[in-house]
Amino acid sequence: MNIAVICRILGLVLEVEAAFMTPALAIGLYKGEWAGVAGLSATMAALLLCGLVLRRIPAKRSEFYAREGLVTVGLSWVLLSAFGGLPFMISGDIPSFVDCFFETVSGFTTTGASIVPAVENLPMCLLYWRSFTNWLGGMGVLVFVLAVSNFTENSGDTLYLLRAESPGINVGKLVPRMRKSSSILYAIYFGLSVMEFLLLVVDMPAFDALCTVFATGGTGGFSVRNAGIAAYSVYAQSVITVFMLLFSVNFSVYYLLLLRRFGAAFRNEELWGFVGIYTFCTLVVAFDIRELMGSFGTALHHSAFTLSSIISTTGFAISDFDAWPWLSKTILVFVMFIGACAGSTGGGIKVVRALFACKIIRRGVRRAIHPQEVRMIHMDGEAVGEETVDSVSAFLLVYVMLFVGAVLLLSLDHLDFTTTFSAVAACLNNIGPALGKAGPMLNYNCFSGFGKILLSFAMLFGRLEVYPMLVLFVPAAWKK
Amino acid sequence: MNIAVICRILGLVLEVEAAFMTPALAIGLYKGEWAGVAGLSATMAALLLCGLVLRRIPAKRSEFYAREGLVTVGLSWVLLSAFGGLPFMISGDIPSFVDCFFETVSGFTTTGASIVPAVENLPMCLLYWRSFTNWLGGMGVLVFVLAVSNFTENSGDTLYLLRAESPGINVGKLVPRMRKSSSILYAIYFGLSVMEFLLLVVDMPAFDALCTVFATGGTGGFSVRNAGIAAYSVYAQSVITVFMLLFSVNFSVYYLLLLRRFGAAFRNEELWGFVGIYTFCTLVVAFDIRELMGSFGTALHHSAFTLSSIISTTGFAISDFDAWPWLSKTILVFVMFIGACAGSTGGGIKVVRALFACKIIRRGVRRAIHPQEVRMIHMDGEAVGEETVDSVSAFLLVYVMLFVGAVLLLSLDHLDFTTTFSAVAACLNNIGPALGKAGPMLNYNCFSGFGKILLSFAMLFGRLEVYPMLVLFVPAAWKK
Repeated sequence: MNIAVICRILGLVLEVEAAFMTPALAIGLYKGEWAGVAGLSATMAALLLCGLVLRRIPAKRSEFYAREGLVTVGLSWVLLSAFGGLPFMISGDIPSFVDCFFETVSGFTTTGASIVPAVENLPMCLLYWRSFTNWLGGMGVLVFVLAVSNFTENSGDTLYLLRAESPGINVGKLVPRMRKSSSILYAIYFGLSVMEFLLLVVDMPAFDALCTVFATGGTGGFSVRNAGIAAYSVYAQSVITVFMLLFSVNFSVYYLLLLRRFGAAFRNEELWGFVGIYTFCTLVVAFDIRELMGSFGTALHHSAFTLSSIISTTGFAISDFDAWPWLSKTILVFVMFIGACAGSTGGGIKVVRALFACKIIRRGVRRAIHPQEVRMIHMDGEAVGEETVDSVSAFLLVYVMLFVGAVLLLSLDHLDFTTTFSAVAACLNNIGPALGKAGPMLNYNCFSGFGKILLSFAMLFGRLEVYPMLVLFVPAAWKK
Repeated sequence: MNIAVICRILGLVLEVEAAFMTPALAIGLYKGEWAGVAGLSATMAALLLCGLVLRRIPAKRSEFYAREGLVTVGLSWVLLSAFGGLPFMISGDIPSFVDCFFETVSGFTTTGASIVPAVENLPMCLLYWRSFTNWLGGMGVLVFVLAVSNFTENSGDTLYLLRAESPGINVGKLVPRMRKSSSILYAIYFGLSVMEFLLLVVDMPAFDALCTVFATGGTGGFSVRNAGIAAYSVYAQSVITVFMLLFSVNFSVYYLLLLRRFGAAFRNEELWGFVGIYTFCTLVVAFDIRELMGSFGTALHHSAFTLSSIISTTGFAISDFDAWPWLSKTILVFVMFIGACAGSTGGGIKVVRALFACKIIRRGVRRAIHPQEVRMIHMDGEAVGEETVDSVSAFLLVYVMLFVGAVLLLSLDHLDFTTTFSAVAACLNNIGPALGKAGPMLNYNCFSGFGKILLSFAMLFGRLEVYPMLVLFVPAAWKK
């Protein structure tokens, strides 16, 4: 394990985080929010100092492989969140460090689970920083840092870091080509964000529009209003519904559309799976809540918004879905697990892995019927190697195990099963609001400090697709 | 698909079921329970008639492969349960056919979930039949039927039927040798049952002892007392605790012990996994409920019994574990899924598959750290083929999917999440009592007719390890 190089990259990451705090600091100075300014500037000083020290560590060797990439990404996210929470603590707005850590992990991992009972009490500069973490976390903080800082000490590093932070699944030939043009992906991200901002700003204050775009773009879900998105008009809610879905689509589809390769774009099986699941569940839920909402039209609006919010793993709420009938609530919990498309800013196990699971199951059934038959699994019209199939199976199993382990540990907090189960589901899949005592109209203060730390790590495991966090706890990874 | 041969075997199965009803009929005649006698004798007449008709169907071809085996087993269990429930309906004790079907499926699949609020109101002959289904279902009804009837129309048939009804996992060389000596397995089953009977009969009426042995042996869980096992002494409860565990061990371990191959018997990784999980969970739960129970000793007794009952998938209860703290309840729900050892009479995904899942995950983590490394998965000291690993992954995924699907459908009954989730877990894994409205002191009457049918099929899917039931719903299996 090449610890020196890892430290040097971590130093850079911390310095860049300080730079990311600058707009928030500017807002604080302009608005005269001195507590917030003190919190931000002290944190920036600490970040720059730590960064400077870490970057001075001399690296004797330059080797940097998969495990170094994983460890760097895992540690980066933990450090980014720990430092990112300091402004809230120093300003006195969130006195407990555990709460600050939870809130910032929730921001960077684009979960949007909150322990702040009334966000409108926070100063504007900290609200901005809180929402901005959503947008930064959406595309991957470290990759963003590397892109911005033009870090090229070793070209191999960047590859392994990219792989560790945005693993996805290698299907067909699309993804490798995509990686080479990651700057185009950022352009798409930026472009979509600007479009949403322009559509929203006609209907709400510019600050609200900006923060809402940050939360939608990263599929994060932090809002700057106590009432959340329910504070805005039906028009704004509809715009947000559409953009949550747009940010959940594999960005390579947009890339192909820009290249005018329409055939390839619409041959994407995951896209149709995503559209199918969304449409079906929206209609079922709308039907299920029609009496509660008075009319089918209103029910459809609420169902379309909520399903979009959950499947995109954003976690915005315009109604208290904890009060919906059990069929709808159960659908929401399971859609939490499916999540968005791979290569988007959304979380969950991803639609493509759910599709894979279905195909693995279908093959299993066929093998039971015809034991002699040899069958390959196909995706987007091409045969998929057994290695990919194995890695998807292993990922799904480890995901289930992590979920089970987290539910067991969280039940030490002695809350009811619905709250415990749905809170782990909402954090591991980076949604935000859960059911029961952590429902959309409540917050995560029902959990103990231990529970909040546990859920923070669940969010990190989910956002980084398990391995970068898991290696931190596996002794074998640290051996020479 | 060779439907003629399937029908002929089904006919035989029905005739043998009639024979199995004889002891119950004798009890009814002796006790003068005329309603029960009417129900049993009418059902026996119907079984013999249908059997006679089905066995007359001329078979033009003799081919009989994996899919024929699966379909025969799946249909047999459905028919056995449908006919097996008729005595309750005809006698008027359980008026609804859906309820009768549920109760009998629950018996044959060794689930032990019940819709009878007060079993002591049932006549003795029907209580006997109800408990006897547990014992028959434990080792596999069809295999029992074939063994008893000496059916040898085609030796290949028996092999495929055996494979379909007791699939398990082919690890090492133990299992194939085991299959050849299935009569020895029945001897072990019978021997253990006799031992338990002798230990119990000193402390309770012979009828109670016999029915309790049926329920323990099959890890079924039907009791002949309204209070369940709480009606018996601490001595009897302790005997049952031990025997539930003994019936959950892979029977090949006993076979090896009989052959004095102690080394091979104790090299069984699954055995140690089973002992480890049971001991750990028992201690944690005992610690968690120590205040509720007054003393740690009492807590340990209740915890040891309940964990034994749940991990063996028997489902007996001596205390209302629905009132236990959430940590204990969560542990119980997850232990439901693990279940007993393969090759035992218990249900669940089986300890060996859980071990496999852990090893697949460990390999996945190692691959993330060292992508170039090639690693085999080992079990009981031997390398396992990739085909077996694939089939275990596919099984686990299909199990999760079935579970999710059943929870979604059952939530149409609009009961709370804890009840719905735990009822599906308790039925799919063949436990019996669940939590919430289907808790150990209540019964499954909280569900609608639709819910009961759904849960009946969940029990069948679980008991037959998915495929024999799944093929009935897969059109591809029925094609020429």
